[in-house]
Amino acid sequence: MGMEKYNEDDNSEYLYGPEILQKLDFNKSPAKFNPPISATKPGEDWMVVRPLQRADYNKGFLQLLSQLTSTGNISRKQFDERFTQMKSSGGYYVTVIEDKRISKIIGAATLTIEQKFIHNCSVRGRLEDVVVNDTYRGKQLGKLIVVTVSLLAEELGCYKMSLDCKDKLIKFYESLGYKLEPGNSNAMNMRFEEPS
Amino acid sequence: MGMEKYNEDDNSEYLYGPEILQKLDFNKSPAKFNPPISATKPGEDWMVVRPLQRADYNKGFLQLLSQLTSTGNISRKQFDERFTQMKSSGGYYVTVIEDKRISKIIGAATLTIEQKFIHNCSVRGRLEDVVVNDTYRGKQLGKLIVVTVSLLAEELGCYKMSLDCKDKLIKFYESLGYKLEPGNSNAMNMRFEEPS
Repeated sequence: MGMEKYNEDDNSEYLYGPEILQKLDFNKSPAKFNPPISATKPGEDWMVVRPLQRADYNKGFLQLLSQLTSTGNISRKQFDERFTQMKSSGGYYVTVIEDKRISKIIGAATLTIEQKFIHNCSVRGRLEDVVVNDTYRGKQLGKLIVVTVSLLAEELGCYKMSLDCKDKLIKFYESLGYKLEPGNSNAMNMRFEEPS
Repeated sequence: MGMEKYNEDDNSEYLYGPEILQKLDFNKSPAKFNPPISATKPGEDWMVVRPLQRADYNKGFLQLLSQLTSTGNISRKQFDERFTQMKSSGGYYVTVIEDKRISKIIGAATLTIEQKFIHNCSVRGRLEDVVVNDTYRGKQLGKLIVVTVSLLAEELGCYKMSLDCKDKLIKFYESLGYKLEPGNSNAMNMRFEEPS
């Protein structure tokens, strides 16, 4: 059991350095916030936008993700291993919103950074796994978390940021500066059977 | 100049272990090859399908990529650094076809593996940067390289493999098993200005 013990220091470990979130200029985004909010001033003093921490296993991060799709029954050990793998690979910017009054994760989005040879060995960002607890409706949290990771992609030097989405979300993402490029906006998938 | 010298051993270094390509079962793919070919039997004895090697800097790999989009003027040092970064991050499966008669790369596709928390800490594959030298038309090389990395994604345990494409390529990818999922097949992008 000693192997699965985590002390306070482990728990507060961030997936990426939080200081970069201080640098994001929300005036650069075409998104309109009313009232104006940002990653550093998310609108309520009990709210914080920050990188994923190990402690978030116990703050409902996976329960929030399960509102998006199936997550399975992920143990603390599995979570911890994936966290460690993401951190050592680099390029994973899982970003969350916490309600500090109740120590719960109420929003999340992931930016992944893909290394390329094209465009002078550039990097491309992708937006993944966006989810907001819908009991917090009206607080612009969806917009806040997506704009945060989109500005982060630019700050990290991406030449573009990409996402796949359902028809009903097109207008939302357009309002944040994303475009369907004419003749070049098809997302296709091949699904593999789960190993039995 | 000593810093930029590469010996034969460095040059033959693979981005990922080539043995996994031996395991791919081309009968699992819905793609129809006529005549039948595969990664291990690409149809001509002067052709080989393999992981990217450092030597490919001198075998026209970047010139081939530049048929796809701008690559810029990438030095040997930049190429080598990106190769090293991809290898140490893990999850980058740049795969090429070489014409051994002339030591030239004539086809390439990249599989990237994205680590997830969802689906029980699963992994998702993405197809990127597919390009084939069009003077080799009729040899099914586009199909060959895409099916190779698609089977590789399944072999590596991905729950799905995704790609973005232009309208004119939809039929091609459908013939290889990719689908536009109704109501959920939009690829959107935000492009950032190059730093000046």
